[in-house]
Amino acid sequence: MSEIYFDNSSTTRVCREAAEKVMETMTENYGNPSSLHLLGFRAERAMNEARAAVAARLVAEKEEIYFTSGGTESNNIALFGAAYAQRRRGNHIVTTQIEHPSVLNVMKKLEQEGYEITYLQPDSLGRITEQQICQAVDEKTVLVSLMCVNNEVGSILPVEAAAQAVRAAGAPALIHVDAVQAFGKLPLNPKRSGIDLMSMSAHKIHGPKGSGALFVRRGVHLEPHVFGGGQEKNLRPGTESMPLIAGFGAAVKVLPEARSELKKLGELNAYCRETLQKTDGIVFNSAPEALPYILNFSVPGVRAETMLHFLSERGIYVSSGSACSHGRESHVLAAMRLPRERIASALRLSFSRYNTKEEIDVFAGALREGLATLTHRPL
Amino acid sequence: MSEIYFDNSSTTRVCREAAEKVMETMTENYGNPSSLHLLGFRAERAMNEARAAVAARLVAEKEEIYFTSGGTESNNIALFGAAYAQRRRGNHIVTTQIEHPSVLNVMKKLEQEGYEITYLQPDSLGRITEQQICQAVDEKTVLVSLMCVNNEVGSILPVEAAAQAVRAAGAPALIHVDAVQAFGKLPLNPKRSGIDLMSMSAHKIHGPKGSGALFVRRGVHLEPHVFGGGQEKNLRPGTESMPLIAGFGAAVKVLPEARSELKKLGELNAYCRETLQKTDGIVFNSAPEALPYILNFSVPGVRAETMLHFLSERGIYVSSGSACSHGRESHVLAAMRLPRERIASALRLSFSRYNTKEEIDVFAGALREGLATLTHRPL
Repeated sequence: MSEIYFDNSSTTRVCREAAEKVMETMTENYGNPSSLHLLGFRAERAMNEARAAVAARLVAEKEEIYFTSGGTESNNIALFGAAYAQRRRGNHIVTTQIEHPSVLNVMKKLEQEGYEITYLQPDSLGRITEQQICQAVDEKTVLVSLMCVNNEVGSILPVEAAAQAVRAAGAPALIHVDAVQAFGKLPLNPKRSGIDLMSMSAHKIHGPKGSGALFVRRGVHLEPHVFGGGQEKNLRPGTESMPLIAGFGAAVKVLPEARSELKKLGELNAYCRETLQKTDGIVFNSAPEALPYILNFSVPGVRAETMLHFLSERGIYVSSGSACSHGRESHVLAAMRLPRERIASALRLSFSRYNTKEEIDVFAGALREGLATLTHRPL
Repeated sequence: MSEIYFDNSSTTRVCREAAEKVMETMTENYGNPSSLHLLGFRAERAMNEARAAVAARLVAEKEEIYFTSGGTESNNIALFGAAYAQRRRGNHIVTTQIEHPSVLNVMKKLEQEGYEITYLQPDSLGRITEQQICQAVDEKTVLVSLMCVNNEVGSILPVEAAAQAVRAAGAPALIHVDAVQAFGKLPLNPKRSGIDLMSMSAHKIHGPKGSGALFVRRGVHLEPHVFGGGQEKNLRPGTESMPLIAGFGAAVKVLPEARSELKKLGELNAYCRETLQKTDGIVFNSAPEALPYILNFSVPGVRAETMLHFLSERGIYVSSGSACSHGRESHVLAAMRLPRERIASALRLSFSRYNTKEEIDVFAGALREGLATLTHRPL
C-alpha cells in the first residue's frame, strides 16, 4: 500500500540530505565541539556551518542564532528570558488565544507570577488584525509574542505590526515571533521586521525532531532559563546535539526558495479546495489567504478521530487539530468560536514539497468513501 | 593515520546499532508519537521500547523514565523541580563542590532565590565520605544532589549514604543523583538505593548527543520547569526527539553487563597506570578505586593544552579537565586543592569498551615523545 502523508505540520519525514548528515555526525565527525582536539574543532566547524545556514535563511547574523532542542524550548527560553529581563520595566504581555501550548502554558505560568496577559481573540477564520495588536500594546507592555503562522488553520498573523505598535505606544516591549510553522515556508527577515526573538524547529522542514533554533537580535538580553556548562552563550547549555544540529543545517540548505515554493503549494492547496468543494457538506476552517501548506476543514456528522482512523487504515495520514493536543478539543477552533459540531469534525491537511495532486485525488476519493461508509450517505 | 579516542567522558562515537536506529526513525518510522494515525502509533511503540530499555537498566518501571534533551536538561528539571516542589518544607540543599556545571549553576540560581546550599568538599583524590553527607543533612534539608561518578577524576561518591542521612535527620529531602558518568558503567538501582531522581545521558554510552533521561521515582512530584504540549507527562514537553530516543534505547540495549565490563576496564586502567608510571614525573589525580573508565593525571611542566595539541596532531584525543570547562581551570581539581601547576598540566583519559592495550602503548609513547619535545627532557 503506498502511503500519503498529509500531516507535515505535525512532523515531517527527514530528507535524504539531512539524514545523511546526521549519520555522518554520529559515526565519523562525532566530537564534542567543546573539546580542544581535532575532533572538537571539526565538530565546531560543522556547528558553524549549520548556524550560518539558519542565519542566512533569516537574513541574520550567525551570532544571532542559538540552537535549542526544538520549538517548545525556543519558546520557553525566549518568553521566560524576555519577561524576566524586562521585569523592572513593566508586567504587561500581549499574545493571542491561538498560540501553541508552549507559548500559552508559559503565559499561564507568568500570569501566576504576576504578569498581566492580554490574549487577542481571532475572528472566525483564525485571523488577528494589525489594529488589535496596536490597541493592545501600552507603555507597560514588556513583551509581545505572536505566532507567524497558526499551526491548525494556517492563518498568517501580521507580526510586522508589532514593531509599529510598540513604537507607537512607546513601550519597552521585546517582540517574539513563534515562527515554527513559518520558517522555511514564508520569507522571513526578523531584523527588517523589528522582531527581537524568533523560534524555529527543524522537524517541520524535513529536519530531525529534537532540534530547533532561537533568533536573538544582537543586543537583546535574555535571562537564562536553563543552567549548565555555558554552551550557546549560556542561553542553552548542554553538550550540543551535533547530529541534529548538522542535520538541521543540511535540511535548511536544501530548502527551496520560499516564494516560488509558496506558489507551488498555493496551486496544490487550490486544487485541494476545488476537489473537496465537490463533496457536499464540507466547510473550510482555513481562510482563503492562509498559508497554503495548511488546509483545515470540517465534515460535520463524522467525528474527526473516526475519519482519521478510516483514512489511516488506507495509508492516508492527516490530523485532527494539532498533534500536540492529542485528541483534546482544539483551543484554536474554540477561540474562533466555531460550533462544537464543526470543531469535533475538523481535519487538518498539512502539505510538504513532496506532495502531489495525484495524492489529493486519492485522498478525496477515500474521504468520500469514508463519508459514505460512516454516515451511510450515498457515495 | 589511525586515531585513538580516549575522550569518551566528553562524548562517544555512536555505536552502529544506535546509528542505524536513528536512521530508520528519521526516514521510515518518522511519525509524531502524538499523532492518532498509524505512523503516530508506530512512533509511540518505538518510544515505549526505548523507555523500557532504559528502565530495565535501572531496575525501574517504564513509567519512571522521562526522556529529555540530555544530562544538563535532566539536572535542571530535577533540581528546579524538586526545590520548588519542596519549597514549603525547607530551604536547605546539600550538594558537593565537584558537581557538573549543570548542577552547580542551578544551585547558584537557587541560592539567589534564597535557598541555602551546603557544598561538600572533596579530599585530594576527589572523594566525598558517607560521614560528610550524614553531617550535612538536617531536618530542613529539602534536596540532596550528588553525582554518582565525577566526570574529571572518576571518583565514585557514596550516593547510597544519602538515603540513610535523610532518614536519620528526619529530613523531607528528595535525593537526586547525577548519574551521567555512571549510567551503563556501574550497576545502578535507584529505588533500592532510596534515590528519587537520577539523570542520565545517551552520548556518554555510544548513543547520540542531544538525548538523555530522568528517572523520577513513582509518587515523587516535581514542579515543571518547561511548559508546552504535555509530552512526558508535562515534565519535558515538546515533540519527542524520536530519532534520538530510539537511538538512545538501541545504545542501552547493546550495553555490556556492567560488572564484567567493569572488570575489563579495570584491567585496561591498571595497564595504563603501570605504563604511565614508568615515565618520570607523572602524578595521578584519580583515586586508585575510581571508576576505571576515567584516569586523570598531571605531567607538571607541560601545560595540558600544549600536550593535548601535541597528541591531537598525532591522532590521539584526550581531554584537559572536562570538555565543558572549555579551557578554564578545573573547578574539580581546584576543590581537591591540588597545586596550580598540577591543575594546569592535568590530562584526562576516558575509555570506552572499544579501547585496547595497544592504544595505550601508542599513547604512552606519544606522551613520552611530547614530554621530551616540549620540555627538552631526554626521551
